[in-house]
Amino acid sequence: MKKEKYMDEGKKTIKPDKVGGFLDYLPPVMIARNKMLSTIEAVYQSFGFLPLDTPAVERLEVLTGNRSGFQMNLYRTVVASGLESISDAAKRQDMDLALRFDLTVPLSRVVAAYSDKLPKPFKRYQVGKVWRGERSQAGRYREFVQFDADIIGCRSVIADTEIIQIMHTVMTALGFENFLIRINNRKIFEALNEIIGLDDPEKREELIRIIDKRDKVGDEELKAELMREPDNQYDPAPNLSAEKAEKVMRFIAIQGSCDEILAQAESVVGSSKIGGEGVAELRRIADNLRSLAIPEANWKMDLSIARGLGYYTGPVFETVLTDLPEIGSVYSGGRFDGLTNRFISNSNIPGTGASVGVDRLFAAMEKLGKIQVVPSLTKVLVTVMDPSLCVECLRIANEVRAAGIPTELYLEEAPLKSQLAYALKQEIPLVVIMGSDENEKGQVSLKNMAARSQEALDKSVLVSRIKEVIK
Amino acid sequence: MKKEKYMDEGKKTIKPDKVGGFLDYLPPVMIARNKMLSTIEAVYQSFGFLPLDTPAVERLEVLTGNRSGFQMNLYRTVVASGLESISDAAKRQDMDLALRFDLTVPLSRVVAAYSDKLPKPFKRYQVGKVWRGERSQAGRYREFVQFDADIIGCRSVIADTEIIQIMHTVMTALGFENFLIRINNRKIFEALNEIIGLDDPEKREELIRIIDKRDKVGDEELKAELMREPDNQYDPAPNLSAEKAEKVMRFIAIQGSCDEILAQAESVVGSSKIGGEGVAELRRIADNLRSLAIPEANWKMDLSIARGLGYYTGPVFETVLTDLPEIGSVYSGGRFDGLTNRFISNSNIPGTGASVGVDRLFAAMEKLGKIQVVPSLTKVLVTVMDPSLCVECLRIANEVRAAGIPTELYLEEAPLKSQLAYALKQEIPLVVIMGSDENEKGQVSLKNMAARSQEALDKSVLVSRIKEVIK
Repeated sequence: MKKEKYMDEGKKTIKPDKVGGFLDYLPPVMIARNKMLSTIEAVYQSFGFLPLDTPAVERLEVLTGNRSGFQMNLYRTVVASGLESISDAAKRQDMDLALRFDLTVPLSRVVAAYSDKLPKPFKRYQVGKVWRGERSQAGRYREFVQFDADIIGCRSVIADTEIIQIMHTVMTALGFENFLIRINNRKIFEALNEIIGLDDPEKREELIRIIDKRDKVGDEELKAELMREPDNQYDPAPNLSAEKAEKVMRFIAIQGSCDEILAQAESVVGSSKIGGEGVAELRRIADNLRSLAIPEANWKMDLSIARGLGYYTGPVFETVLTDLPEIGSVYSGGRFDGLTNRFISNSNIPGTGASVGVDRLFAAMEKLGKIQVVPSLTKVLVTVMDPSLCVECLRIANEVRAAGIPTELYLEEAPLKSQLAYALKQEIPLVVIMGSDENEKGQVSLKNMAARSQEALDKSVLVSRIKEVIK
Repeated sequence: MKKEKYMDEGKKTIKPDKVGGFLDYLPPVMIARNKMLSTIEAVYQSFGFLPLDTPAVERLEVLTGNRSGFQMNLYRTVVASGLESISDAAKRQDMDLALRFDLTVPLSRVVAAYSDKLPKPFKRYQVGKVWRGERSQAGRYREFVQFDADIIGCRSVIADTEIIQIMHTVMTALGFENFLIRINNRKIFEALNEIIGLDDPEKREELIRIIDKRDKVGDEELKAELMREPDNQYDPAPNLSAEKAEKVMRFIAIQGSCDEILAQAESVVGSSKIGGEGVAELRRIADNLRSLAIPEANWKMDLSIARGLGYYTGPVFETVLTDLPEIGSVYSGGRFDGLTNRFISNSNIPGTGASVGVDRLFAAMEKLGKIQVVPSLTKVLVTVMDPSLCVECLRIANEVRAAGIPTELYLEEAPLKSQLAYALKQEIPLVVIMGSDENEKGQVSLKNMAARSQEALDKSVLVSRIKEVIK
């Protein structure tokens, strides 16, 4: 605590900057975002999903599963005063904490910790911020909101079908028609790994990560990555031969109708037990989706879909907007049957689910003109002309508000012109004006901003008149 | 990246523990919490307040204002892989970041950064988690949710009045009758400091902090703290003489009717310009609250109310539950007219507002039996008896759901008994049962769990019958 520093206060100003990769949401955006979140929540609730919330901060080992192969950068945290250096505090404390990077790992912790308190099956939704120490770049946020729905405790592909159905329902409820849910199965990758003889679990994971970047890097770089030699003994580069890499490239490029894709996949991986299972599961999902009349324009089997995260074990899904493919997946997920194993060995509790990338999807909705931006939801502004009538104005505002109409009072002394300019800027449709003359007569004026009309009214009929006008 | 570690995976399990002082909210609690948050949001919206969201992570200097007197412990953060040690990462990075400790400082940053984009006055609400590195103890959380409403740009006590009115409306909407909003003014403390000759700003802040703990520590310890000698040159202990400490003690103990308290306060601090202002403001607030017919049982002037945070400059408020005074303030705030000054010198943008301590208030509501706990909001469970009819069951569930009724399918193969047990546990009132016999006849059974009755219905009338039963 240096005395000099304190004395400087007021001289030295601080830049009002947020941290790069983090976002402020100002009211017009928040109003639209809240509407979007309510829409998603209503769909999740309609399917009987239950809300859950977990801390932003988790113990590091909970998040990483103590895996040496864990590659993501996290926001690690440590408690320190504003005066101490963080490296001193970090040396002092041995508890390793970090901000969560998704909502699925915390869900697994909850399932392991409270198994006797939770319904079985457990269908839960959760909305919240997650943090990743990504390099800052356009469209990549370091803090972003995910809105997840997961089903814990169901091994059947009916659960995966329901997740895909929910994804379809959410996208439709948000006003999208041109979207495609791309579906694959990690079991098929497992079989492919068997076939090309890739045994090392870290190399297998790396292969998934490489294929996951296909849309970003293109086929040429992808193939080069598959063949790349390791830089050092810890580098998990798969280091495939040209022939094997070509085999993988041909496999993930398989195109055709749903049935053709699955038939071709089967011809490659069907001889493997796990490969056969993977294809059969996709076939059942396809049958279910057709029975539910979910339009085939909105889903397809795609053998190149990998999903970056390590914990998936079965069907995986991602959603692209066909009008904006370049932004990548906005809604993705899959089956993760082993995620509680890090807490309870061999528990093998099944799980499947999907997560809306709220910020990315919202940005897409803005770009596609699907967001109606309004500056405010207020319907009535009560102006204050004469400070001595201020309390009377508060009373009138209360009366209108009590009728269920969002109403605000202009709280600062200002010329009527400024108060009307505020109403105009905030798109508040009605303005109540009360001068001292009017007040003496028990009257108020009601100004309709759109119609540019104004009428004098008895106070007693103000609320009913407002209801008429805004109905 | 040690190879050995990876090979250990699956052997060594991790405890599914959350971090101490952090909370998990399981579904029954979340359902009730969400209802509480919706109630608060509806009140804020009805007063025309606009939603805002800001990042969880801020630059350290934004949070502390670069003040040597800043005493709170923060969750400092740094980006690091899951493998690296946090002290290494902290040494490598020079950007100092921390999790926010409230929503008011971020609001000030937003006001300074986007002044041309925001309406004036700017009334905003914000709900979000905040983090404080407090010592863990009962009722003290390290992560908790605040729900704030603030008015930026209004210097008049009408704005403070509106904040108190909103506090009253929120508490009433949440079902409270027995609560007391205690009101004071920091200007009166300023005057008191003048009178006892306490000039050092850090000592003045310390005096506020000491008085803020009155309800917790009692008068004897409070007085001792006021008189305590500093431990070292950086210790801001006010070190008052016995006489001055006694003067402070007598002042904060003043009791009586609202008018009596203000008259007595005036007799002590009225000779000081700022003291006179402070008393006059409280008098106007009292007049306004009476004019608005806000019951005097729910508010009072209390000269011992200090509020711990350094940034208040005028009226301060806190709310205690008279049935549970020991939990402390559940809803507090005040006027902070200088908070943008750290960003824009001498900007002096006025602000006033209040913040619900959501977790503490919710805990109180639970204790007072004001929370109706339900395990689920689902109205209909569609059971699956025969896996081959699963898709038909999905279709029926869709049909009921499309009528706006939250409906879920039991997704795992299980005996009917288990499925009914689930409905019972989750308090789902209606269960649809479809066996293969019934399906052939185009029928389903509808079981009413409360009435313990069951009826066979044509599928075509199922939805209308369900609507009848649950209406």
